[in-house]
Amino acid sequence: MGVFEKKSCFVIAGASRGLGRSMAINFAKKARRESVMILLSRDLKALKEVETEIKSSCQDVKVVVSEFDQGDLDEKKFNNIFENIFKENNLSIDNFEQAVIVHNAGTLGDNSKYVKDLVNVSELNTHFGVNVTGNILLNSACLNFFTQEKFAHRYVINISSLTAVKAFKSFSLYCTVKAARDMFYKVMTEEEPTIRVLSYAPGPCETDMQIKCRENTSDPEVKQMFESLYKEGNVLDCDASIQKLVQILETDTFVSGAHIDYYDV
Amino acid sequence: MGVFEKKSCFVIAGASRGLGRSMAINFAKKARRESVMILLSRDLKALKEVETEIKSSCQDVKVVVSEFDQGDLDEKKFNNIFENIFKENNLSIDNFEQAVIVHNAGTLGDNSKYVKDLVNVSELNTHFGVNVTGNILLNSACLNFFTQEKFAHRYVINISSLTAVKAFKSFSLYCTVKAARDMFYKVMTEEEPTIRVLSYAPGPCETDMQIKCRENTSDPEVKQMFESLYKEGNVLDCDASIQKLVQILETDTFVSGAHIDYYDV
Repeated sequence: MGVFEKKSCFVIAGASRGLGRSMAINFAKKARRESVMILLSRDLKALKEVETEIKSSCQDVKVVVSEFDQGDLDEKKFNNIFENIFKENNLSIDNFEQAVIVHNAGTLGDNSKYVKDLVNVSELNTHFGVNVTGNILLNSACLNFFTQEKFAHRYVINISSLTAVKAFKSFSLYCTVKAARDMFYKVMTEEEPTIRVLSYAPGPCETDMQIKCRENTSDPEVKQMFESLYKEGNVLDCDASIQKLVQILETDTFVSGAHIDYYDV
Repeated sequence: MGVFEKKSCFVIAGASRGLGRSMAINFAKKARRESVMILLSRDLKALKEVETEIKSSCQDVKVVVSEFDQGDLDEKKFNNIFENIFKENNLSIDNFEQAVIVHNAGTLGDNSKYVKDLVNVSELNTHFGVNVTGNILLNSACLNFFTQEKFAHRYVINISSLTAVKAFKSFSLYCTVKAARDMFYKVMTEEEPTIRVLSYAPGPCETDMQIKCRENTSDPEVKQMFESLYKEGNVLDCDASIQKLVQILETDTFVSGAHIDYYDV
């Protein structure tokens, strides 16, 4: 059962929809009783629906939802996030054997633009802010709260993408942040040998982002690729992809820091 | 003679010292007469010294120096940079067959910090601002001024690093931006097949940055690696590395978009 055998504190960023929602629900089903799911998202209403769905089928886990915007780069907010969540929800850090952090929050960036069209400062700042800076700050908050001393076992899962390793026309913003994050977590893997780190590329899943890939992509060839994936029934259901992630985590034999794609397994 | 055969407009960002200075001088020596070197840097005084040095040995090329801070993210500044430089220096765009852009400006980031120590928003914003956002904006300014219509031949050289492909403890900030930039230029390679793109990793050259690698690195093992490189005489002279880059450009057989390391050639 690997990851799911221990009494865990799960943190899932971007848990209100798509892959994050699927992870919240599927991980909760697998989680050992008395585990806690901390679900973060900008969309509190949608998050509460995920909470309701989990509670209807998994009475043995506690669910905590918290409004959180990874792109709102307020230092204090990041520094105290888990202290506040634990205090507000009467959680005790001594109750867990393990922390499982999932960095899933992120944005596509404007895929209607080519490299030469990237001239807008605030657009670039927003994009790198939410996908890189905000992610690094959330990760630091995690490492400094879920310490090795308090949590003997720690997993950090970076939701990656094929675009982290393969360049696609019109996707310079998305490719760039995904490559940046993969490398960031490789460095963390070197620095933190006690943490099991995984960059998981979930494949082309049917999410709001996938719809934007089909509809907004500037490059005709790449747009056609996304349209064909859809027409030929090759876009994945989020749950199908997340079940493969669950399998990887249960087997728990991956090399820490690896980039593993849905299609690799 | 590859790149250096044609009447060129060279743009070198970060040209006042280290690798940028070496490129300015070595490229000027090789450049066809009536080529122009546009040298950008925050340090105008040092840039003027580079100009003097070039003029003393290469009377056949024109040198233009311009104060430029890649981390000062003012949209208007980027949009008009080359129009202004051409106007102020009575340069005519019709005089050139070729543009050679070198993205060399960049910073190391605080290598006294581990991943978990990255909690300072303004430090992160500054780092990603100068190394990624500012670089993208300068690149857009280049693509939109040095167009295919006006410059039949175009080269874009991204000064990369081994850290773009290999993770080093204490170097999360540097590794992340270098991986991000390599990927960004891979996407550009796909989008712009008429541009010859190269990510050149110059090896461990004796620059101000290399001194910081020896002196400030948090991780003892990685620090020792940099110290040993130095003690054993394996730190490269900037000119030695740039001469290899010159050779790659003269041969001009590299695959566009490739990451080529000093030690690969």
